[in-house]
Parts: sequence; C-alpha cells; structure tokens
Amino acid sequence: MGRPPIYDKDVLLGQIIDCLWECGYAATAVSDVVQATGVKAASLYALFGSKKGMMLAALNRYAEETFAGLRAVLEATPPGAAQMHAVLEHAWHAGLADPRARGCFLVNSIMEARPDMPEFTEAVAGHMQTIRAMLQDELAQARDLLPGTTPEQAALFVQMQVWSIKLMVRLRPAPEMGPAVIRETLRALFTPESLRSTGISG
Amino acid sequence: MGRPPIYDKDVLLGQIIDCLWECGYAATAVSDVVQATGVKAASLYALFGSKKGMMLAALNRYAEETFAGLRAVLEATPPGAAQMHAVLEHAWHAGLADPRARGCFLVNSIMEARPDMPEFTEAVAGHMQTIRAMLQDELAQARDLLPGTTPEQAALFVQMQVWSIKLMVRLRPAPEMGPAVIRETLRALFTPESLRSTGISG
Repeated sequence: MGRPPIYDKDVLLGQIIDCLWECGYAATAVSDVVQATGVKAASLYALFGSKKGMMLAALNRYAEETFAGLRAVLEATPPGAAQMHAVLEHAWHAGLADPRARGCFLVNSIMEARPDMPEFTEAVAGHMQTIRAMLQDELAQARDLLPGTTPEQAALFVQMQVWSIKLMVRLRPAPEMGPAVIRETLRALFTPESLRSTGISG
Repeated sequence: MGRPPIYDKDVLLGQIIDCLWECGYAATAVSDVVQATGVKAASLYALFGSKKGMMLAALNRYAEETFAGLRAVLEATPPGAAQMHAVLEHAWHAGLADPRARGCFLVNSIMEARPDMPEFTEAVAGHMQTIRAMLQDELAQARDLLPGTTPEQAALFVQMQVWSIKLMVRLRPAPEMGPAVIRETLRALFTPESLRSTGISG
C-alpha cells in the first residue's frame, strides 16, 4: 500500500513553472521536475499525462496569473496613454527585479513553439491573443490615440513592446534603457497633447 | 587508417546553424548534428571542442551573415526614416518567407542565454551591440529624427522592433500585422513631415 500523495497541486504547479521557466521545455527533463518537487515521476504522469501536458498546464497557469496581474494594472488607471505607460513600466520593472533575469515564461515559450509542437504554438498564440484583447478593450475607450491608429493596432504594438522588453531583460540591460523605449512606444500611439498632459514627454 | 575528412568547414557550419536554429541549443544533441551533417562526433569535437563551442561558432557565423545582410540594406538607402523602413520591412519579409517560421537564430538564442551559460549571454549581447552600433552610425546622419531622440535611443528602439517582429513571425501572424507595426515604429522616431514625404504615413 503506497502512501497517499501529500502535495498540493497549486504549489506543485508553481514549482513546475519555476523549473520550466528557468531552463525551458527542451532542457528540462521530467527527472529535474521530480528532483525539484519531490513528486514521483509516476504521479506527475498521472496528473499531466506527459511532459508536454505538464508544460501546457504550466503555461495555462502562468497565463492566468499574467492576465490577473495585467487586469490589476489596467484597473488602476483610466484608458489612454497613462494606462499603457503603466503597463509598460510594470513589464520593465518586473523584468529588472528578477535576479535570475528569466524574462517572461510565455514570451520565452514562443521559442518552444516549433512546427512539430503545434500545441505550444496554439497555446502561446491563444494566451497572447487574450492579452491583446484585454489591451484592445481598454484602448477602445481611450480618447488620445493618434488619428488613424485603431485600438487593435495599438494593442498589438504595446504587446510587441512588452515582448522585446522581456527579451532585453534577459540580456541584463542598463536600467536607463527602459524609459526611452517606453516613451518612444507611447509617442507612436498617442497624441503629443496627451503625452504632455500626463508628463510622459515634455 | 581512417579516411581524411571530406567536409567543407563552411558548409558544415551552415548545416550546424540549421540544426541549432531549428530546435535550439538545449533540444539539439550532438548526435543530431552527426546525423544532419554526416560528420563523426569525434571530428565535431576536434573542430569545436564541445557542444557549447559549436553553438558559439554557429552564432558567430550567423551574426556575420546578419551584419552583411544589414549592411546591404543600409547601403541601399540614405539615412533617415526611409532607411529604417527598409530595415524593418526586410526583417518582416525575411521572417514571413521562412516556411519553418524559425524567426532569427540570434533572437532565439536570447532564450538560451541563462545564468549558467554566461558565454551565450555575452556572445548574443555582443552581436546585438554590433547591430545597434551599425544602426546608430546611420541614424547619427539622419536629419529627420524627432527632437529629443538620440541616435542611440532610436537604434535600440529599431532593434527591439526587429526582435518582436522575429518573435511574432514564429507565431505565424496575419501578413497585415507587419505594416502597421512598422508605421508605428517610424512614427515614434521620425518627424511627421519626413514620414509624409517618404510616403510612409499619409
């Protein structure tokens, strides 16, 4: 008679995210996860079916946390340049604050998305689409977008800046690089009057 | 008595780039390279010292090709908005044209840059710095940068757009996503008059 498992699935998924985020899917063996979590391989397979299933569960959990974090940032500021400023600042500072310079697990996983693993491409693309829709809903209420820029285009542009910020963080950039990038991003999307009135550019 | 090696080192390095670019460093075993190239493991180790040495040689070669490609694009257009437009268009179309949607080997390798592999971080950061310097040299001669934007900041911004374009390509984006992103990037950096006169924005 085996002992019943004593792990908490929430804690376990957090530990699995840590493993896969740090080293990536390809470089992480199931035995690494066993060692990091103390949960036997057989239990991991029973829970997730496969290493791929484990990765997808980790991506989904991380994405939900990302959505919640983004929602909190969006709710703190009314739609417009100042709100997107907050989104970009959040991405930059969260990235810099990580001593392991891991960037973003979702963005890193774009690299795991290969033709032979369509589930990853689909999962990551889906999560990115959700984030874009959240940004777009807010941007649709902004009154300071430049003429000719749609909320959809602006949402994509902001998301792409977050991607490149998360990449830059992995290369351990000089801290002063962020503010210039953020200012330029906002200048691409919002009216000069709005940027002046929110103090983003002089 | 073994046969002398019959490989061409240039061709070999091209094949190695193909292996490592497709699957990434972690997911590529030396045995995969042996199979793809037909060169024995002992010969590969004799040439490169280690799998890490092979990756660094591949990165260096790919970087040199990237520098040459960028130089050709830069030389075809005088400095300014139109030149950076050409750089971004080149990145977008080269990315879309790859049926395997591999993005950029250098950008992908930012994901291989982990704290326990400082050589990779250093190599990739160095190559990125070289590219940024090439862009900056050109931008220093541009007369249409927005006031308050330095050539250094503009070079970093353009580079970061190329990164996020290369990420997006991996997710198989809709082809119409590129032009809007490129227009917004240029609007962040160059005067409206210049964008109008070059036909980039109306």
